[in-house]
Amino acid sequence: MNSPASPDTLRKPLPEELKQALAALFEDRFSTAAAVRGHHGRDESSYDPMPPDAVVFAQSTEEVAQAVKLCAAHGVPVIPYGAGTSLEGHVLALRGGVTIDLSQMNRVLAVHAEDLTATVEAGVTRKQLNQEIRDTGLFFPIDPGADASLGGMAATRASGTNAVRYGTMRENTLALTVVTADGGIVKTGTRARKSSAGYDLTRVFVGSEGTLGIITEVTVRLYPQPEAVSAAVCSFPSTAAAVHCVIQTIQMGVPVARVEFLDENGVRSINAHAGLALPEKPLLLFEFHGSEQGVREQAQLVQEIAAAHDAHGFEWATRPEDRSRLWAARHNAYFAMLQMRPGARAISTDCCVPISRLAECMLDTQADCEKNGIVHAIIGHVGDGNFHVLMMIDPADPQDVARAEAVNARMVARALSMDGTCTGEHGVGLHKMDFLLQEHGEPAIGMMRRLKQAYDPQNILNPGKVIRW
Amino acid sequence: MNSPASPDTLRKPLPEELKQALAALFEDRFSTAAAVRGHHGRDESSYDPMPPDAVVFAQSTEEVAQAVKLCAAHGVPVIPYGAGTSLEGHVLALRGGVTIDLSQMNRVLAVHAEDLTATVEAGVTRKQLNQEIRDTGLFFPIDPGADASLGGMAATRASGTNAVRYGTMRENTLALTVVTADGGIVKTGTRARKSSAGYDLTRVFVGSEGTLGIITEVTVRLYPQPEAVSAAVCSFPSTAAAVHCVIQTIQMGVPVARVEFLDENGVRSINAHAGLALPEKPLLLFEFHGSEQGVREQAQLVQEIAAAHDAHGFEWATRPEDRSRLWAARHNAYFAMLQMRPGARAISTDCCVPISRLAECMLDTQADCEKNGIVHAIIGHVGDGNFHVLMMIDPADPQDVARAEAVNARMVARALSMDGTCTGEHGVGLHKMDFLLQEHGEPAIGMMRRLKQAYDPQNILNPGKVIRW
Repeated sequence: MNSPASPDTLRKPLPEELKQALAALFEDRFSTAAAVRGHHGRDESSYDPMPPDAVVFAQSTEEVAQAVKLCAAHGVPVIPYGAGTSLEGHVLALRGGVTIDLSQMNRVLAVHAEDLTATVEAGVTRKQLNQEIRDTGLFFPIDPGADASLGGMAATRASGTNAVRYGTMRENTLALTVVTADGGIVKTGTRARKSSAGYDLTRVFVGSEGTLGIITEVTVRLYPQPEAVSAAVCSFPSTAAAVHCVIQTIQMGVPVARVEFLDENGVRSINAHAGLALPEKPLLLFEFHGSEQGVREQAQLVQEIAAAHDAHGFEWATRPEDRSRLWAARHNAYFAMLQMRPGARAISTDCCVPISRLAECMLDTQADCEKNGIVHAIIGHVGDGNFHVLMMIDPADPQDVARAEAVNARMVARALSMDGTCTGEHGVGLHKMDFLLQEHGEPAIGMMRRLKQAYDPQNILNPGKVIRW
Repeated sequence: MNSPASPDTLRKPLPEELKQALAALFEDRFSTAAAVRGHHGRDESSYDPMPPDAVVFAQSTEEVAQAVKLCAAHGVPVIPYGAGTSLEGHVLALRGGVTIDLSQMNRVLAVHAEDLTATVEAGVTRKQLNQEIRDTGLFFPIDPGADASLGGMAATRASGTNAVRYGTMRENTLALTVVTADGGIVKTGTRARKSSAGYDLTRVFVGSEGTLGIITEVTVRLYPQPEAVSAAVCSFPSTAAAVHCVIQTIQMGVPVARVEFLDENGVRSINAHAGLALPEKPLLLFEFHGSEQGVREQAQLVQEIAAAHDAHGFEWATRPEDRSRLWAARHNAYFAMLQMRPGARAISTDCCVPISRLAECMLDTQADCEKNGIVHAIIGHVGDGNFHVLMMIDPADPQDVARAEAVNARMVARALSMDGTCTGEHGVGLHKMDFLLQEHGEPAIGMMRRLKQAYDPQNILNPGKVIRW
């Protein structure tokens, strides 16, 4: 079993009065059905579900505000829920309470093509947004893999494969609408591309995982669809060679749009899953965006750098269908890797280190997995120094879970000793609260706690996540 | 006179005990000399000086912490001071107290060239940093014009001419060391390029103008020096034509490094000041960074777009000395413009709007200046929708000041109605506190106030700035 430490003393039944008020407000969009609660009590982590006491499906910021007001009056926890794709137990109702499902808040409210901005409700997913703006010649680049909601992506400071070129939700969120712990509604910014107007409330809420407020609208930056796109894949004799190729690429200022790493195990699993015949060696997958000529030039330069690091098997894909095939393999890596141990569930680690330390951090972690007999594979957003070890575990075997968690703990300690972070993009949830303290130390955690206490004095917003209180 | 509203009742003499303790700690780096106090009581704004009661010159984070602890024990205001180049009265000692001068904290602590990061003490200026890292092949791009300190740039969320390509201090600060209101020392991040590890303390302090903590160390991102750089200048029949050229350039994804606008008055003044003979029409100044071929391609594309907007007088500068001459003219625009009205002082406005509204906002503001007989010129970081109206005023003439302030207030209202911000890069200081309320509204200002109260319960950190309390 992989149960979150659940302080059951903190779980109280939902007051009848609150239940009735929510039911009156949300009518058939209020539910206490076991199936609905169960669905909302889990994410993509390996935790067992912790269902809330009730779920409401909000359709507007005002409804979210009303629900929070009602819960606040009763001191009842409120948990925002987007697409349920988080990985660290973010949406588990650790202390019961009411989950606010935002998936019906799925309207694209405004697209300002000339300004390269869009404003969406929190439940809009990244694929939906890209679908709706396709005709403008623009796109929203951030791609965490899953078809996450924009509200959830902002709340976890998500990023993914092309953050190396376009940044993360931190850089690409211009403004938010947020419902505060007392049911107030706050707009945190404007559509100006930059601003020095006071405290950066937008960035206070980006990455706060529903613990400081509930994000209901997001204004993001858009980018012109590149005139040309090409992809390339090549293999390296060693992990170190692949990483040094990336370091040099970035130091030479080549504006790669994506550069993804797969270790031998990762390549083997996608070969099996997607019927590919890639050499079973550490591999880099590149994507270039730019003008026809620019893309050619970038690719040429990278090929030269790769060759200098003994790369082989350079394969090009400029036609959309070939690119899609390569990237589909990468995007399905998670599922492919799960097949490495049928019936297993994956624990995905997520650290990020200065790129000069990346090879060392990956290799030491790989060795630790091997020493402990853990079926694993490594994928990495190497341009950012961010990598994930997927460890295939049997959630019903406590020893198996404990071995994997111990490897993860040692990896985090290693990353921190290299001036890195315990999470590059997944967030803290309830899984990484101890690592957070390890990373920041008590003085900084104290500042975070003071922020939490100032913004949520009753501790009703997604309690038991991010920091202990 | 242009005096800040100074609540003199809040000004108390420095306690003798505190004075002695600071003198013992800082020895000859403690001063109450009128000249030293006067120098630290003013910035580049048109406000009359408001000197602190004493100045200490700190040489380490620990010394800053000790000074803050002593001041906190006596409830005495503490004001951080970097290079004194702020523009909105940020460093004025509105309620007296102790100014901590950080200019002697001027060591580059670490340069990690492979990781593209540098860690510096707060007093290091951007020119000094670029000088010290020149041999690494890297550079720090943010250029607010003045040779500001990195601590001050972080504290005001500064940016400048090449933010359009490289972002602002918001995007380029990886981590900070901060002394808190109780004299604690907090590290806000690591050298990882991205992180989802808890609340974004780095961004809480970036732009907080010394009111939430005192920044003593800054870790910033560096960039590879471009292989090739070229600059171009061209003139347009109208402001609208110039702005539409920029909109199209950005929508086509041309990665311009800088694109600066000067109106007719601005061009006239730099012609006179730098002995140039540019057509006295709205002008754009471009800079391109990239490979030799990439820069040629960008420039070609921009020339075509400009021609389609009736640009003329396209002039190229690829040789460093020619580029320097053009950019020197732009960098000295502030001083050139001051010559438009000898003896005058400039009030520089600073709003930022979505780029689709930029021409309208600039033209309406221009018309307002003309209607009110204000000698003025406009310069703009147009790729970001950010522009400055420099209004030449006689600070000794209250009517003159009032007229300019009224134009500024109307411009801010105009920018806000266009979903823009009251300050793109200068910050709030004491000059824009009312505008801040206008921009954000009471709910958001309430959240800012709660943050201030949580982090500085005695209100001793640069009191009377950013938000009223």
